[in-house]
Amino acid sequence: MLPLRQIVALDGAKEHMNDHTPHSAFLAAFSLHPAGVAVVTASRPDGTPVGFTATSLASFSAEPPRASFNIAQHASSYSAVGVGARIVLHFLAEHQVPLAYKMAGPAALRFSGEHWATDDNGLPRLKDVRATLDAHVVAVTEVGGNASIVVEIDGGTTNPDCSPLVYVERRYHAVGEPVD
Amino acid sequence: MLPLRQIVALDGAKEHMNDHTPHSAFLAAFSLHPAGVAVVTASRPDGTPVGFTATSLASFSAEPPRASFNIAQHASSYSAVGVGARIVLHFLAEHQVPLAYKMAGPAALRFSGEHWATDDNGLPRLKDVRATLDAHVVAVTEVGGNASIVVEIDGGTTNPDCSPLVYVERRYHAVGEPVD
Repeated sequence: MLPLRQIVALDGAKEHMNDHTPHSAFLAAFSLHPAGVAVVTASRPDGTPVGFTATSLASFSAEPPRASFNIAQHASSYSAVGVGARIVLHFLAEHQVPLAYKMAGPAALRFSGEHWATDDNGLPRLKDVRATLDAHVVAVTEVGGNASIVVEIDGGTTNPDCSPLVYVERRYHAVGEPVD
Repeated sequence: MLPLRQIVALDGAKEHMNDHTPHSAFLAAFSLHPAGVAVVTASRPDGTPVGFTATSLASFSAEPPRASFNIAQHASSYSAVGVGARIVLHFLAEHQVPLAYKMAGPAALRFSGEHWATDDNGLPRLKDVRATLDAHVVAVTEVGGNASIVVEIDGGTTNPDCSPLVYVERRYHAVGEPVD
């Protein structure tokens, strides 16, 4: 472990050393880190729909096409994302902030409303999103009460006319101008 | 596996069914998905600095503070991110697009220049970034030639005066206005 005092601030005029814990350094850095906004949905064996807003969705490999996301083992959706489970990844658009909040709110209310429907495979599918990917879970790695889930993509739809949504500094934002 | 034709487009007027493979559906959806831009650095046992631009960096758990990122097993940095290895996570700012490209380019050129220095612990540290987190690797999960790496945070610095950088639709962008 690195004691905080050993961390070198190379650009002392601009960077400031955190004088707090690894926990608060982590919170400060990740609050500054932009993330796309996705909703993962699945079904329990009895057909109950489950799902949650995820800012951890990432590309894992292109060939075969795989993605990863993280989830707490105590989460309401956890039992529905074991190896082999079918899931749907939804990529939210700029106009879907209320949906992002809803799917991050109380689990009992996430499927209350007309924002979703059950598809032919029994999976809950959210309406009007920017893209969806259908996938199945290929690996679950549990580390200290949380898990990294790797899924393989089986197909999907896109709706590129919608604008992207970004979460950063604890708020939802539009994407700005290209800077490259 | 879900044949593509079984995927229900709930909002047929706006969504369009992809008539291509899971691979191209994956590429289309993830090109629409915004991501923050980070650079992971580490050192090989002989002191050689290694690193790469990562758009897969995500929060894993807050307590203990842990993060995850993905890496190909054939990557030049892979041998330096085994369990126990010390790494540095750098969160790039809007003005650092050239650095993002450099650290995603040819491995032999990534540490050519004045954009970094070796710290007291022998780790390569990039200058002028938005935030850094020092971490050590706690889990490596290999799945089909790629790996999910979970790291635990030991400390960090932040420089919140810089603006965030986002990668989406195959270009670097500024973050726009709040929409919540």
